[in-house]
Amino acid sequence: MISIGILGCGRIGQVHAASLQRLENARVAAVADAFPEAAEKLAAKTGAQVRSADEVIASPDIDAVVIGTPTDTHFDLIEKSAKAGKAIFCEKPVDMSADRIRDLIKIVDAAGVPFLTGFNRRFDSGFATIRERIASGEIGDVELVTILSRDPSPPPVAYIKSSGGLFRDMMIHDFDMARFLLGEEIVRVFATGSALVDPAIGEAGDVDTAVAVLTTASGRICQISNSRRATYGYDQRAEVHGSRGLLKANNVPENNVEIASGAGFCAAPAQHFFLERYAGAYLAEMAHFIACLQSGQAPSPGIRDGLAAQVIADAAATSLVTGVPVDLG
Amino acid sequence: MISIGILGCGRIGQVHAASLQRLENARVAAVADAFPEAAEKLAAKTGAQVRSADEVIASPDIDAVVIGTPTDTHFDLIEKSAKAGKAIFCEKPVDMSADRIRDLIKIVDAAGVPFLTGFNRRFDSGFATIRERIASGEIGDVELVTILSRDPSPPPVAYIKSSGGLFRDMMIHDFDMARFLLGEEIVRVFATGSALVDPAIGEAGDVDTAVAVLTTASGRICQISNSRRATYGYDQRAEVHGSRGLLKANNVPENNVEIASGAGFCAAPAQHFFLERYAGAYLAEMAHFIACLQSGQAPSPGIRDGLAAQVIADAAATSLVTGVPVDLG
Amino acid sequence: MISIGILGCGRIGQVHAASLQRLENARVAAVADAFPEAAEKLAAKTGAQVRSADEVIASPDIDAVVIGTPTDTHFDLIEKSAKAGKAIFCEKPVDMSADRIRDLIKIVDAAGVPFLTGFNRRFDSGFATIRERIASGEIGDVELVTILSRDPSPPPVAYIKSSGGLFRDMMIHDFDMARFLLGEEIVRVFATGSALVDPAIGEAGDVDTAVAVLTTASGRICQISNSRRATYGYDQRAEVHGSRGLLKANNVPENNVEIASGAGFCAAPAQHFFLERYAGAYLAEMAHFIACLQSGQAPSPGIRDGLAAQVIADAAATSLVTGVPVDLG
Amino acid sequence: MISIGILGCGRIGQVHAASLQRLENARVAAVADAFPEAAEKLAAKTGAQVRSADEVIASPDIDAVVIGTPTDTHFDLIEKSAKAGKAIFCEKPVDMSADRIRDLIKIVDAAGVPFLTGFNRRFDSGFATIRERIASGEIGDVELVTILSRDPSPPPVAYIKSSGGLFRDMMIHDFDMARFLLGEEIVRVFATGSALVDPAIGEAGDVDTAVAVLTTASGRICQISNSRRATYGYDQRAEVHGSRGLLKANNVPENNVEIASGAGFCAAPAQHFFLERYAGAYLAEMAHFIACLQSGQAPSPGIRDGLAAQVIADAAATSLVTGVPVDLG
Repeated sequence: MISIGILGCGRIGQVHAASLQRLENARVAAVADAFPEAAEKLAAKTGAQVRSADEVIASPDIDAVVIGTPTDTHFDLIEKSAKAGKAIFCEKPVDMSADRIRDLIKIVDAAGVPFLTGFNRRFDSGFATIRERIASGEIGDVELVTILSRDPSPPPVAYIKSSGGLFRDMMIHDFDMARFLLGEEIVRVFATGSALVDPAIGEAGDVDTAVAVLTTASGRICQISNSRRATYGYDQRAEVHGSRGLLKANNVPENNVEIASGAGFCAAPAQHFFLERYAGAYLAEMAHFIACLQSGQAPSPGIRDGLAAQVIADAAATSLVTGVPVDLG
Repeated sequence: MISIGILGCGRIGQVHAASLQRLENARVAAVADAFPEAAEKLAAKTGAQVRSADEVIASPDIDAVVIGTPTDTHFDLIEKSAKAGKAIFCEKPVDMSADRIRDLIKIVDAAGVPFLTGFNRRFDSGFATIRERIASGEIGDVELVTILSRDPSPPPVAYIKSSGGLFRDMMIHDFDMARFLLGEEIVRVFATGSALVDPAIGEAGDVDTAVAVLTTASGRICQISNSRRATYGYDQRAEVHGSRGLLKANNVPENNVEIASGAGFCAAPAQHFFLERYAGAYLAEMAHFIACLQSGQAPSPGIRDGLAAQVIADAAATSLVTGVPVDLG
Repeated sequence: MISIGILGCGRIGQVHAASLQRLENARVAAVADAFPEAAEKLAAKTGAQVRSADEVIASPDIDAVVIGTPTDTHFDLIEKSAKAGKAIFCEKPVDMSADRIRDLIKIVDAAGVPFLTGFNRRFDSGFATIRERIASGEIGDVELVTILSRDPSPPPVAYIKSSGGLFRDMMIHDFDMARFLLGEEIVRVFATGSALVDPAIGEAGDVDTAVAVLTTASGRICQISNSRRATYGYDQRAEVHGSRGLLKANNVPENNVEIASGAGFCAAPAQHFFLERYAGAYLAEMAHFIACLQSGQAPSPGIRDGLAAQVIADAAATSLVTGVPVDLG
Repeated sequence: MISIGILGCGRIGQVHAASLQRLENARVAAVADAFPEAAEKLAAKTGAQVRSADEVIASPDIDAVVIGTPTDTHFDLIEKSAKAGKAIFCEKPVDMSADRIRDLIKIVDAAGVPFLTGFNRRFDSGFATIRERIASGEIGDVELVTILSRDPSPPPVAYIKSSGGLFRDMMIHDFDMARFLLGEEIVRVFATGSALVDPAIGEAGDVDTAVAVLTTASGRICQISNSRRATYGYDQRAEVHGSRGLLKANNVPENNVEIASGAGFCAAPAQHFFLERYAGAYLAEMAHFIACLQSGQAPSPGIRDGLAAQVIADAAATSLVTGVPVDLG
């Protein structure tokens, strides 16, 4: 039985706690949050104890921490947890600064603790299946990857202002997915974007509609497009064109009902947003983390995957401003 | 070059004439119709001569006749054409009376002329493909066949009154399709129906919503359902469940466009009606007829297929009235 | 907090216990099974106490029982539970004999206890959604219902022998679905079937491939087909043709992945079997039961729905033997 | 009746001649080809006269020419035809040099003759429908366009060498489609590509896998990807993301058959190549040209559309080499 301390009892902390309750080999032992009521509420639901974050990290009965606090607290919590020998599950992004992530890699490596970066989409049955089938050779060599992500509606402009911008906040998931599906490191990034959904986003210095083109050393290409708006649900698709075929992960509809009328044949909208669409992925992600702690296998994606996506996001943000592609290391 | 005489220049005669114009080895040499203007109009379009039906049948320059006249004239025209040695393409139904079709079989056999019964759906790329794939063994043994047909809207009640009823007018196509897909003769027929679309159809003694269950000697089963109404186009589907898989012929949409919005993902309605949906089938049917005349192969479906479908339709009409299944032969 | 006693700790009892663990207002208080190890295992998982069935029914701390024992024990457990004033959730079939269900209705009515018959498919998001949309008038009047069910593979012949036959064991779900979707009682049943999947099933006096035609007083028609075999997963579909449109509940694929190659565009098989496909339905069913206990609303489907489906199944079994339709009451 | 002279009797000239035979108001009056047998063969099929290209252009009985000769002959034939007052239907590309197209615009404008550039895809029912529905405001403002084109297999390297490269030979169709769907001129082009399909294509200085990002003055973005290889047919898709919804033109399958088995649910491959997929588009394109000649309306796409696509293709080819985006006038 693995004992877990949840650091941060907001929406994502609650998701991870619920996953832990459904797993046989793990339990939520302690919870911490800057807002005591949030911690108490989650404690009541899970039977966990309320402690401070520092207490959780110092507790000898805690095997691992799940970090779901605001991004600017990650560095400190990761450093302390690593030094205390705790296994770490950290929500993305690990940190807004690639350099600071590089520092964390040294700390985590020195401590030798298991580390999982919360790129939950890798655990979605659709994306996980296409990755496995690519790896099995079913479509031959990967040549061209197309990733489309559209949120149902933009977040508040206040959030946008502190988000690091679309490339670091939203498209970072797609950058990780691109690496996951291409099977090769990105060497060049071109990105562009516009504020078409909400002029206030443009005034805040960000974009809400954006594309990126990523290339690898061997010439594989990935196209990504993002919009902060979609009237038909949470649009999350990827397709991988290979030398012997094409693999697609399609959207997941809200239900399997179809209506036919003069308007044609209409199926349900895509599942509304990430908590629904990725419910299974969050559970599989936590199951993977716990299984790794039990088997001694290193969790994946690890902290270096967190760094790699951040580096691409930084390059995309630069490309947006300079108008030209950015070469990576 | 095969020279064809078109008997009946209405809608279906025009369809067959247009098919002949697209085929390299045939030409419309003569046309006949009880209404001279109809014949003249089709003659102008095709370059054919206007003659009377008797003249067409007597003409030594005519190789084959295409009979698209009202059903009650078929017997006479088939008899004369067969005795004149003409190959015959006759629209379904061959005749409203199974006994009279049996008489025609003797006449046609005695004359030794090629005969095609116009069950056009056998030539639709969807239905033809599933039949071929069944024959190839792809789904193993056929066990259960489901056929759904829905017309966009009911014909005028005046037409219904002289149509022979839904089973002989509409479901007869499905009875032929059942034989085509089951690959075995029908031995038992149960049918029932209601007048739900238009009470006037019920008052005329017919039904507009109906189902039939057909069984074969080896226990294969076919379910058919018909409605005289569909708001979403001309609904024409069949699926064949076999021991190793399922083959489906789906509807054909009006176009390949999809729209996504708050209402979900909507594809186009089914193609509206038979002239659109079976445009390719009519052409393939005529190409098969012409190819048979050139190669000496017997056209299929032949006159016996016309009889078999009529016998099933008669049994279904009886079952509707008696409420119990009817055993065939 | 509603306290539940689980009677029967086999596969279905475990499903219901897991549902209860995910609901906020209910808890598994006690479990009982003829095999002590089964009860102990489920007790360990849920924190419930192991008791005998009679103890559970007699316990004042138990609000409701969930009956998932073999069918021939249902009558006795229902009678005792009703007399003890417990709310009852009983797996289908309530009993193999319609007359005995009629007796139970008197007992349950006299006791005034809430009763839910476990027709779980009514709670599937697909079937529940089409029923709601029919009720909203979206497709006008219901005219023609088509239900297709195919199991992935037949159960052991030993099971078949004691199952009451395909109509009472398998198609009974579809008979309930027919009533649910038609919105009107069935007055006439025709059924036929064959043993095509496994000759041993035929030797045992049952069929493995079957169809039924149900009609209502107003002339609505429902076609059902069943097979004990499907190579492509658990095939569970319904479509409802109405005067203004068509509603379909399609299969649920194992995942949302598609592969394109020379073989065409291939999507995943249907989810394999009922535990997967109806996972959400089982949870929603239990949530409905608990919500009814809290609100005082009568659960639906109730015991009369259990009877109605059994009566149709009996009629279908008779029709199979006699070859003619059976009129109901 | 419009009399047409076909200049170039190769594959595309034959397609246009067949379209003309199916139209009521036009006829193929004369045909010309550098290879006399090609001209004679097409003349035999259509009843047209064989003439030289110069004779066709000089003939007073010819209303319009259809130019389907090699690209390097277009300039001369267009100039002569315009000066002779003939209406012109010219296959794309109008010319390999944008400057020469600019010269031709002056000549065609001075002559005042109707001119259609053969971007046939604009007449495909899928693409034409989404354009109409965009224009109707159904999806609000266009924000993001995604165009995917994949040929089944690469052309011979010898063809590639004289083709002007992928951007001018293959992606030019997509550049025109981008303009057609964006509804606004392109101001910036970024492109990149690789030779992944066939190293010989790379040795010939071209790419076989490529992407482009186009932006408009108002910030609308279009992503295009091309591959010279697809195992699943001719992949031709576009989707337009707007402020109120998404419109997609999907692939057209070879037939409407689906097979279900342990491998899942498999639909047919996409129609194999352009003659099949765009058969309807070629007919609609010619019908539009003829209708314009009769009504006096200017054909669209015109010669300026031919220029605009060429300018984008040139920019993309430059971007591929320089690695940076190219700003257009």
